[in-house]
Amino acid sequence: MATDAQQACFEAGIKFGSLYHQFAGTPVSPSSARSLEAAMAEAIENQPFCESVTVEIRDDRVANAIDHENGYTELTGSLMDVEMRIDYEGVGVSTRMTMTDGYPLMELVDVDDS
Amino acid sequence: MATDAQQACFEAGIKFGSLYHQFAGTPVSPSSARSLEAAMAEAIENQPFCESVTVEIRDDRVANAIDHENGYTELTGSLMDVEMRIDYEGVGVSTRMTMTDGYPLMELVDVDDS
Amino acid sequence: MATDAQQACFEAGIKFGSLYHQFAGTPVSPSSARSLEAAMAEAIENQPFCESVTVEIRDDRVANAIDHENGYTELTGSLMDVEMRIDYEGVGVSTRMTMTDGYPLMELVDVDDS
Amino acid sequence: MATDAQQACFEAGIKFGSLYHQFAGTPVSPSSARSLEAAMAEAIENQPFCESVTVEIRDDRVANAIDHENGYTELTGSLMDVEMRIDYEGVGVSTRMTMTDGYPLMELVDVDDS
Repeated sequence: MATDAQQACFEAGIKFGSLYHQFAGTPVSPSSARSLEAAMAEAIENQPFCESVTVEIRDDRVANAIDHENGYTELTGSLMDVEMRIDYEGVGVSTRMTMTDGYPLMELVDVDDS
Repeated sequence: MATDAQQACFEAGIKFGSLYHQFAGTPVSPSSARSLEAAMAEAIENQPFCESVTVEIRDDRVANAIDHENGYTELTGSLMDVEMRIDYEGVGVSTRMTMTDGYPLMELVDVDDS
Repeated sequence: MATDAQQACFEAGIKFGSLYHQFAGTPVSPSSARSLEAAMAEAIENQPFCESVTVEIRDDRVANAIDHENGYTELTGSLMDVEMRIDYEGVGVSTRMTMTDGYPLMELVDVDDS
Repeated sequence: MATDAQQACFEAGIKFGSLYHQFAGTPVSPSSARSLEAAMAEAIENQPFCESVTVEIRDDRVANAIDHENGYTELTGSLMDVEMRIDYEGVGVSTRMTMTDGYPLMELVDVDDS
């Protein structure tokens, strides 16, 4: 059987995959980025064992990615930083997604089963 | 070739299909419904020729659909009312999605090419 | 009220927005492109008034977009060509999405209400 | 730092959340279920550390869920069984999603770090 810490990490992964693939492709511009950040965080916080989610869509990267004729682009992992905290049966897991070597990397930052 | 009114209706349809299939499946509860409504409207308003979008997630229907163990459900067309206004080369198109005979129906309300 | 031709164009737009925002973000590589093309076409052909859909994911573009460390990329409009045929109350509408000036453009090719 | 087994469970969760939220909402009928199963499995198998994915869309449940006027429904977790195998640095993780007490439950079946 899986340990509580392993279960906590499994749950953390589910939230990350959910957030990414639910919202990737959403039309986004600097003026709509704030409402999208809030909706993403609150939507995923509904999921079981999810303590908190913060999403920061980086306006500088959105501006660089924008199709200047239309004034918007589509959300991808490279445009945002995400931090998430999971609590499963007392095990706390911190995760984040940041750009690493040019790609968005989802990673475990800390697993606290003390 | 297509008329401006036909183009306007095509554009209206694109926005409706986009809104629906981008956000269907999003975890939602009464406490997260407001931020999701705002994000959906602002995201689709980025798209070309889209004048305005209003999304009303119906808390009564969310409450009925909710998985009471987890406290949330997933967004479907039956949980929301949507109105949209498109303007393409001076042709205004009003569209809405409402429950009709038990199913969410996307429909053209008005095409104004006067 | 909307004409049958306008309704047909609205329905055509719905299908295009649906196809795009349902599947954008899907992990794709040359070896998985064929099954994704088939699933996209058959899924959207379920929708009302949709006669036929063809999706061609361009392996050359996928290969160029690929993250070479991981061997896949995420589906975007720039990686595929789509053609669709709608029939609404005897009005046939042909639509396509192709790269135009560096962006994927959804367009009405023909509206036949003769 | 996280152990290899915890990392493997995190990766397993990412794949499950990705599969679910990428494809939830897809129009599906018994005649399109086979191509969707194949596309879902092959898409997620592109992701890092993902050994194998099997998706079984249950035609009996699709038939029950179907909107009989239109002949299709939208994919949800309750319509499919999924099994996945992850291999991260020699740790094998088996996961599945099945209906449990009326809800689709994603679970770790086995974590083999022997």
